[in-house]
Amino acid sequence: MILANFQENLAKYAKILVTNGINVQPGQTVLLNIDVEQAALARLIVKEAYAADAQEVIVQWTDEPVQQQQLLHTWPERLESVPDYKLAEMDYFLDQKVSYLHILSSNPDALMNIPANRLAKFVQTTAKISQPLMAAAQSKKICWTMAAAAGQAWAEKVFPQAKDEEEATDLLWDQIFKASKVYEEDPTAAWLAHRETLTKKAQVLNQAQFAALHYQAPGTDLTLSMPQNHRWDFVGGAMENGDYCIANMPTEEIYSAPDFRSADGYVTSTKPLSYMGQMIEGMKLTFKDGQIIEIHADKGLQLLKEVIAQDDGAQYLGEVALVPDKTPISQSGLTFFNTLFDENASCHLAIGAAYPISVVGGEHLSAEEQKAAGLNQSAVHLDFMIGSDQLDIDGIQADGRRVPIFRKGDWAI
Amino acid sequence: MILANFQENLAKYAKILVTNGINVQPGQTVLLNIDVEQAALARLIVKEAYAADAQEVIVQWTDEPVQQQQLLHTWPERLESVPDYKLAEMDYFLDQKVSYLHILSSNPDALMNIPANRLAKFVQTTAKISQPLMAAAQSKKICWTMAAAAGQAWAEKVFPQAKDEEEATDLLWDQIFKASKVYEEDPTAAWLAHRETLTKKAQVLNQAQFAALHYQAPGTDLTLSMPQNHRWDFVGGAMENGDYCIANMPTEEIYSAPDFRSADGYVTSTKPLSYMGQMIEGMKLTFKDGQIIEIHADKGLQLLKEVIAQDDGAQYLGEVALVPDKTPISQSGLTFFNTLFDENASCHLAIGAAYPISVVGGEHLSAEEQKAAGLNQSAVHLDFMIGSDQLDIDGIQADGRRVPIFRKGDWAI
Repeated sequence: MILANFQENLAKYAKILVTNGINVQPGQTVLLNIDVEQAALARLIVKEAYAADAQEVIVQWTDEPVQQQQLLHTWPERLESVPDYKLAEMDYFLDQKVSYLHILSSNPDALMNIPANRLAKFVQTTAKISQPLMAAAQSKKICWTMAAAAGQAWAEKVFPQAKDEEEATDLLWDQIFKASKVYEEDPTAAWLAHRETLTKKAQVLNQAQFAALHYQAPGTDLTLSMPQNHRWDFVGGAMENGDYCIANMPTEEIYSAPDFRSADGYVTSTKPLSYMGQMIEGMKLTFKDGQIIEIHADKGLQLLKEVIAQDDGAQYLGEVALVPDKTPISQSGLTFFNTLFDENASCHLAIGAAYPISVVGGEHLSAEEQKAAGLNQSAVHLDFMIGSDQLDIDGIQADGRRVPIFRKGDWAI
Repeated sequence: MILANFQENLAKYAKILVTNGINVQPGQTVLLNIDVEQAALARLIVKEAYAADAQEVIVQWTDEPVQQQQLLHTWPERLESVPDYKLAEMDYFLDQKVSYLHILSSNPDALMNIPANRLAKFVQTTAKISQPLMAAAQSKKICWTMAAAAGQAWAEKVFPQAKDEEEATDLLWDQIFKASKVYEEDPTAAWLAHRETLTKKAQVLNQAQFAALHYQAPGTDLTLSMPQNHRWDFVGGAMENGDYCIANMPTEEIYSAPDFRSADGYVTSTKPLSYMGQMIEGMKLTFKDGQIIEIHADKGLQLLKEVIAQDDGAQYLGEVALVPDKTPISQSGLTFFNTLFDENASCHLAIGAAYPISVVGGEHLSAEEQKAAGLNQSAVHLDFMIGSDQLDIDGIQADGRRVPIFRKGDWAI
């Protein structure tokens, strides 16, 4: 490792994830999902979690080359079966109200060679198993954090010009440390201050309760209505029981949901999108009454069409997120091929499911009621980036008056 | 890695484990238990198992430093609880009749700093979870193999004089490859020949049906009666369904069970014994009517006493195993601090449970019936090494005639 003080910084990073991220409280059970390649980080996280008096730390290890083999060669009937014990395991995790820390370090191209029908089966069974945990996380029942580690293949993808794998890995760790405030003198205080900033932006927007947003940039002229009592939040926030977590690290965004029936106009993506190991670039979507009526992509058009055809909700928007163009991630000028980083470089929208909490009390509504409130329903949730230093966003009040929210890609409020 | 052709030899080793060890047949489910440090070997094993048309390969990853933290800091009530899903998972594995490959690479000292009461809780819960799998393995319902990989801390323990961890790891891999026939021109053929040799030795002893064995060496003069219809076997052999496996790799032994009520005399251990991260050395046990009546150890006496006090059966013998002193492992002159290797360097006995299959049909008997047949019952099974180039063993026939089985530590039949 040629990066200076790597071990020390890795330990700081583990502490940030445990104390600022999932924010472990005494007696909690921690569930850590991490790649075997990241064992050094895993051990530090486990140590920090027990130092915070966790009752138990459970580690779920993953390995990409093994998973590739499994996806390629497991017999089809087994690939699509969900053994009961896996559902029972999930029930156990939820009974324990686990704090869930998921470390992403995947090679964005890892699943590129998996035949589409096998990949689809895998995605379905994985979703069946993990859906209850995702639902608990999104309805603020458990603390959770998604964060990154510099997997070697991922690093080589982001830094193809690096002289060897070690340099690439170092460069990616450097970006992760920077974006996660590891280099700050007091990372914990820096995260608390950042949380405060995000909270204030959300408060201002929540008080304003704009009736609509109007996006303008080269290739983009889009108007979205916002649901009644819509809620802006940062990713995480206070849970049901009062504990807070920061659910994405890094995170720069304030997000809500548009009324899915409302989008009108067109929008052009500004960054490449990595989905299921494949790239989608140069997207342009045209909407009428919320629905996608025209679709273009310079690359990955077929995949994009498949995504949108997956269910009715996949033809509508479910998320709107505001990210200033001046974040460290955006300023790096890099494409990370990883939504956790790329979505925090840029204002984005998502095709597919809305987060129920994007309307006050939405997590207590039935699916039908959510839909009536304007919250989109879908098995798909695909973020795509639309931010740039040329993006202006106006908030439109009920009386038609306009208030600048973003100017030239940065906050105007 | 300074060892020549390491990748090539590791791939050969993976193939040996899959084809000669658990001997994967089309449609089988393979369960692999392996340390994250051995990911390279794991990936090769998974590849070989799918190449043999396994239906699915499930990998259970372990990590020693994480386990140490868990053993030290998990809350006691959690440490001793066995969640239902873990039992359900085991049921699933047994329903699928998994072929079980367990790769040992542990640091023998890994558990040395765990308080005894916490370690005991862990051993109990682990036993509750793994008992059904062990029982299925020992009663020949599933194919299984225990094999080794050169964990760094283990390697440094075996080779304290190595100039660095890399050299130590190389030296241990070299021993593992040698003992596992990786360097043979045709490893598969070499293993088949070895299996044939072990099978023949077992056949000769099974036909002889000696009434008793008499061990003589410096510090040892011990007579053991053998049960009626006792069976000698190598570790593995033909399973219920006709598939065979080699259950320990390496393996050099032919084993059976003495009548647990019969041991008379004394026996002295010839190699150190690593148990639960602690060492027992210079054991001398004296028996009368099968029971241990005197106990001595130069080192680890307290631990040994605790083991023997664990239940009634722990005061009696349950296994007798014959290993020539000329095996590659013994000739290395090394102590491996790992039973898989050390027991295959030397004739040994075990305190505690007998394997039911050591009497013909024993696996179909109740515990009471097994006991009546002379098969010891206990939660303990502790192998200790008594072989040397000075060990003579006689087989005593029903009419009192003596037949040399071992002379100066090597086969005499």
